[in-house]
This record gives sequence, C-alpha cells and structure tokens, in this order.
Amino acid sequence: MRSIIPDYLTEVLDAVRPDASGEPAGYIPELAAADPERLGAAFAMVDGEVYGAGDVDTEFTIQSISKPFAYALALADRGFAPVLAKVGVEPSGEAFNEISLESDTGRPRNPMINAGAITVHSLAGPAGLNATERVERVVDGLSAFAGRRLRTDDAVYASEMAHAHRNLAIAHMLRSHDILVEDARAVVDGYTRQCSVLVSTRDLAMMAATLANRGVNPLSGEQVVPEPVVRQVLSVMFSCGMYDAAGDWGTQVGIPAKSGVAGGLIGALPGHVGMATFSPRLDNHGNSVRGVSLFERFSSDMGLHVMEVPATARAALRTNHVVGSGPEALRVLELQGGIGFAGAERVIREAVDTSYPETRIALDLTRVHSIDDVARRMLLEIVRRLTLDGHEVYLVDPESIMPDPDPGDGGRVTVVDSLDGASGPACSG
Amino acid sequence: MRSIIPDYLTEVLDAVRPDASGEPAGYIPELAAADPERLGAAFAMVDGEVYGAGDVDTEFTIQSISKPFAYALALADRGFAPVLAKVGVEPSGEAFNEISLESDTGRPRNPMINAGAITVHSLAGPAGLNATERVERVVDGLSAFAGRRLRTDDAVYASEMAHAHRNLAIAHMLRSHDILVEDARAVVDGYTRQCSVLVSTRDLAMMAATLANRGVNPLSGEQVVPEPVVRQVLSVMFSCGMYDAAGDWGTQVGIPAKSGVAGGLIGALPGHVGMATFSPRLDNHGNSVRGVSLFERFSSDMGLHVMEVPATARAALRTNHVVGSGPEALRVLELQGGIGFAGAERVIREAVDTSYPETRIALDLTRVHSIDDVARRMLLEIVRRLTLDGHEVYLVDPESIMPDPDPGDGGRVTVVDSLDGASGPACSG
Amino acid sequence: MRSIIPDYLTEVLDAVRPDASGEPAGYIPELAAADPERLGAAFAMVDGEVYGAGDVDTEFTIQSISKPFAYALALADRGFAPVLAKVGVEPSGEAFNEISLESDTGRPRNPMINAGAITVHSLAGPAGLNATERVERVVDGLSAFAGRRLRTDDAVYASEMAHAHRNLAIAHMLRSHDILVEDARAVVDGYTRQCSVLVSTRDLAMMAATLANRGVNPLSGEQVVPEPVVRQVLSVMFSCGMYDAAGDWGTQVGIPAKSGVAGGLIGALPGHVGMATFSPRLDNHGNSVRGVSLFERFSSDMGLHVMEVPATARAALRTNHVVGSGPEALRVLELQGGIGFAGAERVIREAVDTSYPETRIALDLTRVHSIDDVARRMLLEIVRRLTLDGHEVYLVDPESIMPDPDPGDGGRVTVVDSLDGASGPACSG
Amino acid sequence: MRSIIPDYLTEVLDAVRPDASGEPAGYIPELAAADPERLGAAFAMVDGEVYGAGDVDTEFTIQSISKPFAYALALADRGFAPVLAKVGVEPSGEAFNEISLESDTGRPRNPMINAGAITVHSLAGPAGLNATERVERVVDGLSAFAGRRLRTDDAVYASEMAHAHRNLAIAHMLRSHDILVEDARAVVDGYTRQCSVLVSTRDLAMMAATLANRGVNPLSGEQVVPEPVVRQVLSVMFSCGMYDAAGDWGTQVGIPAKSGVAGGLIGALPGHVGMATFSPRLDNHGNSVRGVSLFERFSSDMGLHVMEVPATARAALRTNHVVGSGPEALRVLELQGGIGFAGAERVIREAVDTSYPETRIALDLTRVHSIDDVARRMLLEIVRRLTLDGHEVYLVDPESIMPDPDPGDGGRVTVVDSLDGASGPACSG
Repeated sequence: MRSIIPDYLTEVLDAVRPDASGEPAGYIPELAAADPERLGAAFAMVDGEVYGAGDVDTEFTIQSISKPFAYALALADRGFAPVLAKVGVEPSGEAFNEISLESDTGRPRNPMINAGAITVHSLAGPAGLNATERVERVVDGLSAFAGRRLRTDDAVYASEMAHAHRNLAIAHMLRSHDILVEDARAVVDGYTRQCSVLVSTRDLAMMAATLANRGVNPLSGEQVVPEPVVRQVLSVMFSCGMYDAAGDWGTQVGIPAKSGVAGGLIGALPGHVGMATFSPRLDNHGNSVRGVSLFERFSSDMGLHVMEVPATARAALRTNHVVGSGPEALRVLELQGGIGFAGAERVIREAVDTSYPETRIALDLTRVHSIDDVARRMLLEIVRRLTLDGHEVYLVDPESIMPDPDPGDGGRVTVVDSLDGASGPACSG
Repeated sequence: MRSIIPDYLTEVLDAVRPDASGEPAGYIPELAAADPERLGAAFAMVDGEVYGAGDVDTEFTIQSISKPFAYALALADRGFAPVLAKVGVEPSGEAFNEISLESDTGRPRNPMINAGAITVHSLAGPAGLNATERVERVVDGLSAFAGRRLRTDDAVYASEMAHAHRNLAIAHMLRSHDILVEDARAVVDGYTRQCSVLVSTRDLAMMAATLANRGVNPLSGEQVVPEPVVRQVLSVMFSCGMYDAAGDWGTQVGIPAKSGVAGGLIGALPGHVGMATFSPRLDNHGNSVRGVSLFERFSSDMGLHVMEVPATARAALRTNHVVGSGPEALRVLELQGGIGFAGAERVIREAVDTSYPETRIALDLTRVHSIDDVARRMLLEIVRRLTLDGHEVYLVDPESIMPDPDPGDGGRVTVVDSLDGASGPACSG
Repeated sequence: MRSIIPDYLTEVLDAVRPDASGEPAGYIPELAAADPERLGAAFAMVDGEVYGAGDVDTEFTIQSISKPFAYALALADRGFAPVLAKVGVEPSGEAFNEISLESDTGRPRNPMINAGAITVHSLAGPAGLNATERVERVVDGLSAFAGRRLRTDDAVYASEMAHAHRNLAIAHMLRSHDILVEDARAVVDGYTRQCSVLVSTRDLAMMAATLANRGVNPLSGEQVVPEPVVRQVLSVMFSCGMYDAAGDWGTQVGIPAKSGVAGGLIGALPGHVGMATFSPRLDNHGNSVRGVSLFERFSSDMGLHVMEVPATARAALRTNHVVGSGPEALRVLELQGGIGFAGAERVIREAVDTSYPETRIALDLTRVHSIDDVARRMLLEIVRRLTLDGHEVYLVDPESIMPDPDPGDGGRVTVVDSLDGASGPACSG
Repeated sequence: MRSIIPDYLTEVLDAVRPDASGEPAGYIPELAAADPERLGAAFAMVDGEVYGAGDVDTEFTIQSISKPFAYALALADRGFAPVLAKVGVEPSGEAFNEISLESDTGRPRNPMINAGAITVHSLAGPAGLNATERVERVVDGLSAFAGRRLRTDDAVYASEMAHAHRNLAIAHMLRSHDILVEDARAVVDGYTRQCSVLVSTRDLAMMAATLANRGVNPLSGEQVVPEPVVRQVLSVMFSCGMYDAAGDWGTQVGIPAKSGVAGGLIGALPGHVGMATFSPRLDNHGNSVRGVSLFERFSSDMGLHVMEVPATARAALRTNHVVGSGPEALRVLELQGGIGFAGAERVIREAVDTSYPETRIALDLTRVHSIDDVARRMLLEIVRRLTLDGHEVYLVDPESIMPDPDPGDGGRVTVVDSLDGASGPACSG
C-alpha cells in the first residue's frame, strides 16, 4: 500500500515513454550503445524516504551531473574566495562545451560549463593533492552525497579520454590564463574520471536530496558540505544548470537542476525533495528529452517551483497516536503547519504505507494553517485508500482548511470540528 | 515602540551612507541633478505593514523598475503565449541597453533589457489600444501594484525622449523583425512615459510586496495579476533582473530584484516581503551602489535567499487573546508554524507596536515547529522591549523550540511548558 | 568588326545564363518584380571606350554600389581625417546590414556596410548642407562618375523608406553615439534617395572606369575626385566590398568590387578597366549570382587580379601610321611597353574596329617588352580577323616576343624582323 | 657610389630611430632579452639586387613571418582544394592568437592567425610525412625562399614550447573538429620549430622578393612555388596579414605584408620589390612600432601601393651601350616603358653603381611612356651624382616626358631630342 507516489511516478513515466525523439550521446561508443528505452524516475525526501519507478537501479555514468557536486566540494574544501577567483557564476547562455572565458581574466563564466567544471575539478580537495589523490577526494565526496560507495567506469573513462580533444583544448586555454596552474592533460584526466562515476537514478535522487536538505545526507546524516555552499550551488544550478535553455527551465520548471549526457537529470527543491530521472535520448541542448518532460510534469503537477511559496515538509506530521482502546480506538495523525507535496508525502507514509490495526483513523488538521492543491489531492487519496482498506476515516478540520473534502471513487470521510466529534454525529463528505 | 525593524533599517542605512562611490545617471539633466545623498529603505510585508527609514517618501522616476511590472501586465492582459513569442526569458549577460536580439527571430532575449521592455510595453493592455490608451493601461497597472494612484513626471519624460536615440534604434530594429508591429517611435514614446512614472521608496516596497504576495496588493486586496504571472515575473527577475551582474546577485543576495537608473532598487521574496531602497549613485552596471550594499545586508542579516528554506509568514500569529482578568490577566500571543523573519515581524507588530494594558504577556510557541536564527533574535528583542516597558513576559515552549532564550540587556523571560505555567513557578531565562 | 570583346562578353553571358539559382531581392515590391532574366555586362576602358553585351542599357537602382562613390565624395569634400574619425576601414566579416559598430566609439567598421554608408552619406558635400542639398551633391557626384546626368527612381525610394526599419535603427544607434549629429530619419531619407539613383550597366562600367583611371572620368576628362581618394576607395572595396565573402573574392577574383541588391556588380582594375554586370538574382550574401560568375571568368580569362603584375594600357599603341603609298601602302600599328588585356584592347580598336583601306597591315612589336597570354590570344584573333577581311598581315617581332604566332582558323600572318621585312620574304605562321 | 637607395634607407631609419615606444615581446625570456635598439631595413629587387641599412645581418627568429611562406608551401605541396578545405581566407578582424574558427566547421578563418598557421604547418609537404620530416620540408622551403640554408634556434624553440599553452589549446580544438588529424602536440611542436627559424633582415627581404617575383627566387632563379600560389598568398597577406589593423594597413600602406613578434616585418609589391625591416619593440597589435612607420614611409615616399598603377621594373633598361669612341665616346643607357621606383633602381645600378670610363653619358628616354615622381627624383639624383663624378650628362627626351629636369645641387644635364643632339648645342637644365 506504499504506492501513491510510486503510482504517480509510474503514471508519468508511462505518459512520456512514447516520446522516442532525440538520440543518445554518440561521441563515444560506450554512450552510443546505451539502451535508449531505459526510463526511470525517483524522489528522495529530505528524511531519506525514496520513491521510484522504472529503471531506478540501472547504473550509468554521472557525467555533467557531477559538476554541481564537485563545485560544492571545491567550495567546501577551499572556501568561497579562491574558487570564485577562478570560476564565475554568470550564466553564459551557451552550450556546455563552449569555452566561455571572460575576455580579460580567462575565468570561466560558471562551473556548469566544461571550462568551469574542469577548473573546479582542479580545486577539489586541499591544495597540494596529486592527480590521483584528487580523483579519490572527488569520488569520496560524490559517494558521501549519494550515501553509498560509488566507483568509476574505466571503459567509459578510457573512451572519453581518447575523444577529449575539446576538453584538452579548454584545459590548455585555462593553463594559458593561469586559471589552471598544473599540467592541463592531468586535470582533464581527473575530470574525465569524475564524469565516469557510475550512479543509479536512485543514487542521483539521494544526491539531490542532500542538496535539498541543506547539505545533510538524509540517510547517513552526514553534513557533506556546509549550508552556505548548498545555497551557492543551488543558485548556480538555477541560473546555469540547463545551459542555453536556462531561462525556459527557470520559468517553466523552476527547480535547480542539472543534466548529464548519459541521460540523467536531477533537481533539488530546497527543504522538500531531491528528484532524478534517467532516459538516454537527448535533445539538441544535450538534455534528456523525457527527463525534461518529466520535470515539467513534476513542477506543474506538484507546484514545485522555487518562486512559489511552498509549505515545508518539516514536521508536517506532529503526532501519530491512538486515543481510546478496543473497538473505539482511534488512530490520530496530527498534522501541523503548511502542507504541500512534501508534507503530504510524510502523511502518506504514516497513514497509508503502514497497516494500522485500528478501524477508526483521524487526520487532525487543527494545527494546519494552509494546504496546497496537490497536498489536498494526496490527502483525499489517502482517505480513499484507507476507506477501501476498511477504515472509517475522520477529518478534524475546525477551520474548514480543506476545501471540498470529497475523496471520490469509493472513498468516504467524516469531517468533524474536533477529535471529540470522531465519536458523535457529523457531516460526511 | 513600533521601531524594531525601523531601527534595523536606520542602522543599515547609516552603515552604507558613507559610501559616496558611483555617480547619478547623467544622460539627462533631470537625473544628473538628483541629490546624490538621498537614501531610503522600506519593507512592505505581505499583509500590508510597511517599515521605512530615511527618504522613503521622496518621489523619483521608476525607470527600469517598471519593467517587471509591465511584463506582469502584458502576461496578464495577453496571456503567456503571445508574450513569449515576442520576448524570451534567457539571461543575456549583457548591459541593459544592449540590443541582444536572437539572431534568427529578432526576439529580445528577455524583458529586463530595453529591447524586451520596449516590446513588452507594446503588449500591455488588450490588442487594439492606441498609444495613449496603452500608457493609461500601464500607469493604471503600476498604480494597482502600488496601491495608490501614480502619475508621470512630464519633464523627465520630455528630456528622455530628446535623448532616446538608442531606444529608437532598438525599436526600429524590433520593427524590422516584426516584433513590433506598429510605429516604432510611438512605442518608444509610451515606454518612456512608463519609465517616467513617479514613485517613492514606500511605493516600490508595496509594489514588490504585491509580487511577494502572489499578485495580491496587500493594502487593497486586489489580485493585480494572476499567480502564474507572478511566478514567471519573479523567475525572470531572478535570472535577468540585475543585468550582467545577475549571477553574482543570484548567489550572494538570492532575491529576485530590479534596479532603475534613478536610484531605486526592489526585491521580492515570495511569501515574505517586498523591499525597496533608494540612493541615486550608480555603479558601472547601472545599479544603485548603496542599494546593492543594502540588499546584501538584508540577505545576510535575515537569511532572505530563495535557495534557503524560509519559513513563511502566513498566519504566524494564530491568536491574540487575553486569558483571565484583573491583575492576573494574561495577554497570549499564540504563534504557529515555522517562524522566520516575516513571521517574527508579524509578532512584533502585535506584541510590541501595540501597547497592551495587561502586565503579563505570553508568547505561546506550542504550535511552532521551527524558528530560524533571525526570528529567534527578533523574538528575544521583543521580549527585551516588553520587559523594559514593564511587562512580565512568558515564553510557552513545551518542546524547547527556542534555543538559548536569553533576551539580554535588561530583558527577562520566564519559560514555561504551558499557559498554566504562566501562573506558577517556572525557570527564567 | 568592333566585336572581339563584345563577342567575348556575349560568350560569357551565354555561359552563365542557364544558372537560374538565387532570387531577386524581395524586401520591396519594386525589386521583387525585377525581371530575373535580365543579363548584361560592360567594360569601360580608361580611355572611354565601352564594350557591352546583353542588357547594358536597362536602368535599375544603384543601391549599395553607390557606397564606394559616396565614400569618395565624402573623402574629397571633407578630407580624410573627418571621414576616418567617423567610419573605419576594417573588414567586418559580416553581412551588409549588420550594425557592426566599434564597441567603444560606435564608429561603423567600414563604409561598405549600411552603418558606414549611412554615415558617409551624412558627410557628403561641405558641412552645413541641408538634407535636400546633400542629396543633390550626391546625385551630382554620382553623375560625374558616370559622365551623364543621373536621376532617382521615386517609386523605389518611397517603397524603401516604407521598409527602412533596419536602416532607421542603425541611424538612431549612430545618432546615440554622436556619429550622426543630425536628425537620424533625415539622413536615412537622403541615403535611401542615394540608393535609388537609376543606372545602366554601361553607366556602372563608366563609373568603375573613373576609379580605374585615377579618378578622371574617361569621357568627360573631369577629375571627379583626387587620386589619393581613389586609392583609399579601391583599397576598401578590395577588403570590404563583398561583405562576408571578401576573402574568397580577394583571392579568387582579386578585383576591387561592389555589388548592389538590384543585381548590379562593378569592378575596377587600377589603370586598366572598369567592369559592370547586371543580373537580379542574388546569392545568400546578397551578391548577384551570375555577376559573381562573370567576374570569376573575367579574372581567370584575362589575368585581371591586383596581385598579379599587369602590364598597363597606357599608350600600348605608340603610333598608327601609313608607310608608303599605293598598293604598297603599309598600315603600321606600333605597339610599346608591356601588353596585357587592356593594351590589346587598344590595339583591337585601332586594328579591327576601324576599316583601313590599305591591304597590308603590320603590327610592330619592336618596342614591346612583354605580352601576356590573354593579350597574345587577342592579338592573334586580330590577325585572324584582318586576314578574313582580306588584309595581308605582318608581325614585326625582332625579339620573338610573341610565342607561337599562329592565328589559326583562317588567319595568316607573316613574321618579320623589321618593317623592312614587310616587303621582302619572311616566314609565315 | 652604390648608395642612393642605401642613403634613403639610412635616412628613414634615422627618422624613426627616436621612437622608443612599444616593448619587445615578453612572453619568453629569449625574446624579452632582445636588444630593443636594433634597427634595420632592406630592399631586395626582383632581379636579386639587395639594398640595406642598419642591422640587416643580425639574425632573429622568423616567428609569424613564416606563416605566408608555409602557406605557400602547403598550397604548392597539396594543391588549393585540400588547403582551402581546412583553412579559410576571410579576415578575422581579431588578434593573432584568437581562436577564430568558423562555428560550423571549425575551419580557422585564415592562415595568418595562429589557428590557421598551425593547420597550415600540418599541410606542408606531401601527406604522410612524419613530424620530423615535415619540419625539414618547411625549413627547406623557407631556405629556398631566402636563397640560403636557414636553421632553427633551439633555445627559442624550447622556451616557446614551454609556454605554448594557448597554441596547444588551439591545436586540440582543431583536433576536435578533425581539422588536425594527427597528434595535436606534435603539430604544435613542429609549428614552434618553424617559428624559430633564424633569419636576417636581408633574408626576409629576399623571401619577400621571391613573392614579388612570381615565386622565383631572384638569386637562385628557382621557382620556389607556382605563380597562382603567390597570387593567393599575396591576397591573403593583403587582407589578413596585419591582424586587426588590416584595414588601416591596406589603405595607408597598401603593401601585402606580414609581421613577427621578434620584430621583423616584410612587404612584397608584386613585380617590384621585397622589403623587410627589423626593430623589436611592438605595438599593441604585436607589430613592430618602427617597422610600421618605415613601411608608411616606403609607401608614401615611393608610391608603392597595390591600388596605384605602378610602372613595372621589367626591362626598364633596354640597352646599355657605347656610341662612338675616343673622347667623343657616349655611354647610352636606353630606358623603356613606364618608369617607377623599381625601374629607376635598375637604372641607378647601371648608371651610378658602375664606374664608366666614358666622360659623356646619355639617358635615353625615347622609349619611355611614363615616369612617376619618385622615379623622376631618382633619375635626377643619378644625373647629379654623375655630374659630380665628372661626367657630362645628356637626357634624350624628345617628348619631354621628364618634367622639370633640374638635378640641383651641383648637378647639370643637357636635354636633347635625340642622340644626335648629344653632340650639338642643347638647352641645359
């Protein structure tokens, strides 16, 4: 019965699956050979719960999705000033592999284009690391974001190095401006290894959730990078993460995001959720075609947009206790604050995914001050499923904060003003 | 006693006042003659309360700050598709007066550069308006955002038209691409009138608050533009509002913002607050020097950054009632939800700015699930001032959600587990 | 019998005629309605002789071909310094209607792009002319180049003004940089009139010949502009005249040239010849498709390339006199110097186009020090035609400067060491 | 007495010597350490005569002056099509080290910028050469242009390779576009060796003279590259040789030219002369400051501009013979054709640089059809010097082609109508 969100994810995967437009990245055989039909999506909540549908455990190379995480590591390891001195934060409005250096200083425009990402790789870890140690630092850091030990795909690494002409060009150009101060080829080698780290969609969702959770990995509880670093990374993802489509993304989707040429795509909504999708066919910006469609659905279906006023997930569920005993026992789920997608998700887990022995269940909205549309629909779906499972469901809503409380399709709910009403007569929706 | 926030604003104004760098805009005599020492700042909360310090009632021309509002009007009046067909949403990374048209279509890159703003002006109001009617529509719309009737400065308008060579160039270029479909000069004339609307810092704060309040003017309650329009406008302000410094602004300040050459600067934090500053000296990006410094302070002092997880202001104060009577009467301010700057501000108004006859006052945090650092400091300052005013203050905090409740410097508070404790013995902080 | 060069021109016109690729300029109805099959070519020698084939007397608007001539007038009327201060001489590598202003000064990159040409128009005539007087100055000047009174096409002018959005944009931009210092629209109006001057292919060839002839109109003998001006104009035509195809043109054709959207194309080879073609279909650079092909033929067939070492036409024919009388009378055409295309053309006129009563004709090469391949072929064709006309032809060539003197196909020549040999026995080719 | 032209060169060197502006190239120690006061100039006539003044035998590295010669070699070795497929001919209007690749194909804009020159190096010699063989081919080719065996400076080569970051960047970028199809570093290595070839100013003048002489080295008589290759190379030098100052150079100087960062500068005037200067201080375009000034003098003093109509040097001197014997013996120098600088130079050599026993010397202008101003002044200086050497000088000028024949300052000449007049009474100038 843990399936409301997985059902939703399955539904949207099915909706985008017929779109076979785009092509997998073709510049190396290893990527060109990817199965183009692979499709997966996962949500990782800031408390560590993960929902997935489709191919969420298939591994693929992280590619450019490593960029925001490596940027976070560099900021954490070196501090803001040294990193900002070498890599800007301005959107370039250009494709990922444009050189885009500032004309006077040679500073890459931002850390999401290759020039910036190569420079960022060279700034990961404390100064003085050799190339091998630095790759270790980066793989360790990415693993900390993911909450499990990651490893590189050596075949992809080797093939990419054999085709790394453009990145070598960029690195030598950076070397000529003293943005890189060590051997250009060695840095490209390390950066290429960084891009060849293998991840699943599930891993990516968890990495994104670590960003959404102020830098704390929801599973391990480790503060992977400090909170100001996360704010910086999310800001840069918002304005530069989708390359030359940044503006469209920022307005239509509104979720800080990053894509990779192997077909991955992540988004992080601060305080709420980390999201990831996987589908190898790319559009002409180099972003996953179906991945972009999925995120557009996520944003419009769930009101996930940084310029909206999302209610936070924090402690949406205040208490979960039983009042009374025997056949009159009433399971009370007390909600509080503003309830949005993420808050409703917490309730789902408590109310639906667990099988309660009590027949009577109450959702107590007394301490809720607002509830958005997606959360309302989710709560009503909870009610409906609980009804179908044989429960008698009460909605404690003294201030009528839940409009039109009709769960429909077999659901049934009794709206009351207080928990006391859960025993007496009440109107039913 | 309504002075905690004004005190703060006065303090930061004093901090930036010595910075006399930059120059007022000099391209027309009317702007060049502006008193460069003028300095003001205002906050307008989403419920209509306004705080100000300095020259908040001095009128000046709105200039480019009209751009996001006119964009909102065009989106509301024409719908998204016709406007997006004519003006993009991609950051240009260029100065405000760059032409920045897409090479194939001639579409301006975004509505915050002049090319986009001139096009947007032509899209305000329903199709078919003549030039005069369109100016009326825009002035009406700006007035609705401000919550009072605004008017244009005809001397500034006339002087700007006499120096509008570059805007005329842009408009003719737009006409050549059929982005404009009417007389180029007439559109520039209307746009110039739009820019010459007179506003005070207080007005600008209220206009920004309308954006922060999902498009509803906090004073009039009018839904000036629909909520999806606001989301679009804020997204574009975030990525394009500060021209070629957009990335720095987005990371360091993180507040959707817009500046004008007369020295105004606004910011809107969704769900929280509209902010405005006024200081005529401009940096080489064309942004107010002190204004930028002020916003940097606002962001860092108050944790106002869209990539953080702000607690909303919505109904932070649940109830304000009196329990008991006579000398035992207890004034109870019941808070709820997550408390951030904007929430704490609501409490200040209730707790401090009003003079209560009751000696005993309780801040009830029972329904509060989180409180951020700036809010914590504000609440403690409330406590301190209430103490100094002779009140006996209680903090009802059964879950110890307020860390280290020491108001300091003459303040005194009794922390209790429930309102009942406000009569009995308790620990004091 | 004046037909060797016309025959050549007819032959190359026939060769390019089947190429129906490209389209006439379509931005105004008057140009779109041009008969796309019109085709003409003319050569004007520096002594005023004109050869033509095809539609050489059809009038069409001069359009951008006016640019080098107006530039010449401005340089002559104002001097170099004031003009160079406002318009550069660097190739822009861009299309004709690109704005291409220097970023710091707003100076147009060169006088062949519209921005430069509009500025140049404003500099024609002495300072202080009003707009009408300036147009008169320009039309007078163009007429002086052509050697006849030219007039404007008012319908084309009016139609172009109604579509002059882009040029108005450019002019307002120039006004904003104080490159233009008068009313932008008035300058565009004058420039549009300049472009609407009606010329025939014959006129254009004569205008080009005036440039090839150090600024002296070959017909009128008027020094239209000083010689240093001509050098400047030809240099700029060479590097900027064919817009973004300048380099291909410079290497493959090597003739300073200028095209117009009505289908005209001119070239000027210093010291030799002015050339013009007319065919309205344009390639995607805006140059006449067949015109470009014709010039490629001219260059390769006749060795006309500024980076070759052409022998000059000056006084190739030293004397034309008769020795002896009666049946022994010998018409002697004494050549001198280096003989190239232009020199051979002079000889054709004297030897073939005139009908001499003398049966015996001698071409005396004693004073000739070199002869290039095209000139050799032309001289042999002269011999052949003279033979066919019944003449007995002698070639006085003591130093065997003419290799392989076989006129072929009915021609016959007797090669001798001196004029004395024209009476005695000699070898025949 | 061979000193008229050396005197001129010495004079102009003295004129530019006080200009100590600019700095030697500083990016490697070997160039930074160059003696900035070195100054030399040389002319090499198309028949092999060389004139020089100053440090004409000091060796320095050829640097970018190798570019046009390597381009010539590639065109000769591979043919036009394969080279044009890889390197364009359009001016870039950019600095020498800009990448300037065509956005679609990655083709460098022209062979004079580094991207083009690196590509050109890879195309020198037949396909299939290894890197070492290719360097040999290039050094052999440069030597053939110079007419003597050249060698590389290994210290400069090694130092440049250690600082070749930018060229490595360019080469890797070219490799990414398959413009280079072999190891990027190896090509840069070869190109760097090419740039390190040691030449003197004298060598450079001879190399330029080989271009001016249709590809035939004036000393060795070797056809180093075919004539169409020379035309191509000169055209590209004219439009692209002076980088972002190409237009100024083309109009003001008008001589196809190329500069090198070691301070060398060459120019080639087709059919006339190769010129070279050496002075290490560079302007901000990377061109020798004094070198540019010298070429401006050469152009204005001698009318050397491709857009003028220069009279060619070919056989300006028709015969040099003695008429009569004993004290009446008359040395006759018979001139012909058009006489310009280069023609007059030939006369100087015959008339002045040789010591004739005959007292009476005649310059016979009967077969001369034109004479330009610099040639006139040179001929009068010849007359003056012959007078001072005790000769009695006659000018045979039946058509008064020499205006104002006053040699001045001790010179004396008798103008006559025919050689017969050299015995009888005549007017003297």
